[in-house]
Amino acid sequence: MYDLITFGRCGVDVYPLQTGVGLADVETFGKFLGGSPTNVAVAAARHGLRSAVITAVGADPFGEYVRRAIRGFGVDDVFVSTIEGPATPVTFCEIFPPDHFPIYFYRGEHPPDLRITPSMLDLRAIAETGLFWFSLTGLSREPSAAAHHAALEARTGGWTVFDLDYREALWESREAARQAARRALPHATVAVGNLDEVETAVGVRDPEAAAQAMLDAGVRVAIVKMGPDGVFARTADDERARVEPMEVKVVNGIGAGDAFGGALCLGLLRGWPLERTLRFANAAGAFVAARLACADAMPTTSEVEDLLNGVAS
Amino acid sequence: MYDLITFGRCGVDVYPLQTGVGLADVETFGKFLGGSPTNVAVAAARHGLRSAVITAVGADPFGEYVRRAIRGFGVDDVFVSTIEGPATPVTFCEIFPPDHFPIYFYRGEHPPDLRITPSMLDLRAIAETGLFWFSLTGLSREPSAAAHHAALEARTGGWTVFDLDYREALWESREAARQAARRALPHATVAVGNLDEVETAVGVRDPEAAAQAMLDAGVRVAIVKMGPDGVFARTADDERARVEPMEVKVVNGIGAGDAFGGALCLGLLRGWPLERTLRFANAAGAFVAARLACADAMPTTSEVEDLLNGVAS
Repeated sequence: MYDLITFGRCGVDVYPLQTGVGLADVETFGKFLGGSPTNVAVAAARHGLRSAVITAVGADPFGEYVRRAIRGFGVDDVFVSTIEGPATPVTFCEIFPPDHFPIYFYRGEHPPDLRITPSMLDLRAIAETGLFWFSLTGLSREPSAAAHHAALEARTGGWTVFDLDYREALWESREAARQAARRALPHATVAVGNLDEVETAVGVRDPEAAAQAMLDAGVRVAIVKMGPDGVFARTADDERARVEPMEVKVVNGIGAGDAFGGALCLGLLRGWPLERTLRFANAAGAFVAARLACADAMPTTSEVEDLLNGVAS
Repeated sequence: MYDLITFGRCGVDVYPLQTGVGLADVETFGKFLGGSPTNVAVAAARHGLRSAVITAVGADPFGEYVRRAIRGFGVDDVFVSTIEGPATPVTFCEIFPPDHFPIYFYRGEHPPDLRITPSMLDLRAIAETGLFWFSLTGLSREPSAAAHHAALEARTGGWTVFDLDYREALWESREAARQAARRALPHATVAVGNLDEVETAVGVRDPEAAAQAMLDAGVRVAIVKMGPDGVFARTADDERARVEPMEVKVVNGIGAGDAFGGALCLGLLRGWPLERTLRFANAAGAFVAARLACADAMPTTSEVEDLLNGVAS
């Protein structure tokens, strides 16, 4: 039995080894484990949680790398399928600190992780896990969307976290993404997204109103990441919390959201108070934002606590 | 007016900086100009030929890089279009010297260079150039195939070289590739391919018989690259030539074919005897095979002559 299972995309992040220059001028690249739900599982594993990810790779060397990297980070790969045909996706980015990190997906129309069918799922494991994490991108294509809803139907308790992760390039339209979000929200207990993502999901950008709309849709906890304005959350019991952003020198903002996610899983599973959870998750995100790497930079619990306590790392 | 114009794909080759290991173990990558017809134009420009390439890139930083690299190698980019929507293609490879160089295309279903329409062509420039080079891959999708045939119809003299370049991953079936090759062969004066490619085009693998089939289809010169057995050619005047492979320590075989192509253009345009052309092109290929880079390693005429004369480079 797992503390948490995430469901969604994976791939290889081929990231520049030079920062502050565009792809036209980058000279060398490194390769890293990528895909938000996959890296959330990695981030959670760093906190000592028993984690697994439901995803799929292509039958190619990059697929082998992804599977090996997942295992290397201490995440169980038993639910990682290998699918013949489509290539394991690749993602490039540009790193312009402190706040511009454009992403370039090479995922094709039907990447392996969107070909997961309901029959490929271990619904018992999904039902039993303490926390189930899924993202909006997984709802962008069939049969993946049907598989997500089969998983959601199997959930009868525990936390079900909906990462509103909206990537414009992966959808036909924002309206299609909104419809998919609205259909899935009633099955989640937690929803989390940045301002753009909550606007995509519920049509309003104001944090209070967006959180209210997510609660109205059925979640128990609504979390809005407001960038330079910090993080805001509301619960169905009308509890509110807001934390300020941490002052760190941002090197690469990519991956901060996944670090936040893994830390959020820890707070939810431990039953921490809302504000403590937010502060901890916020610090975990800042920890990764201050480093070039993503999956490789995910902090342990004590590293996050040191950062919160002002201990130099 | 150009000595030659090539037509076909382009992209970014993201190649490992470590050789002899699979992609799962590669740690760092470099980026290079890619796409066979593009690199043939680069190879030809290194021999002092006025070259241009008809291709298209995406409206993204990699597209900017491709255009800049084309210009940087002295090839005119006036016929390079920028197309909104699809990403500039990316290609990975594995480098297992001396003879295993698998390629992994990330081109999507409809990359920019296969969206070139007949109306985008400068048919006058295509008619006037001394040599027009195209490849089989350009016939794999519409509207690119229609554009290729519009270009071929415009040709009334000079050399028209058909590179039988067959990439299995880019076709629905080998039979579809064969039909496309058969339709285009009567419009070419030269056809060139390796054993697998000539078999795809004309259905026979034996070099003599394959050359005969290509001559029967209407070309004046048929060239078969036989790997370890060298290169064989026959002409419509029943001239024959065969050259042995050069003894070089192969570092990366990718790009050798494009170096061969650029050198072949020089021999054809200079009116060299068949055997001299083959020997020269063969040495140009060997020159690049002995180096990690492709576009960046294309030899000048004197570098090829030095290699032929046994002068250490």
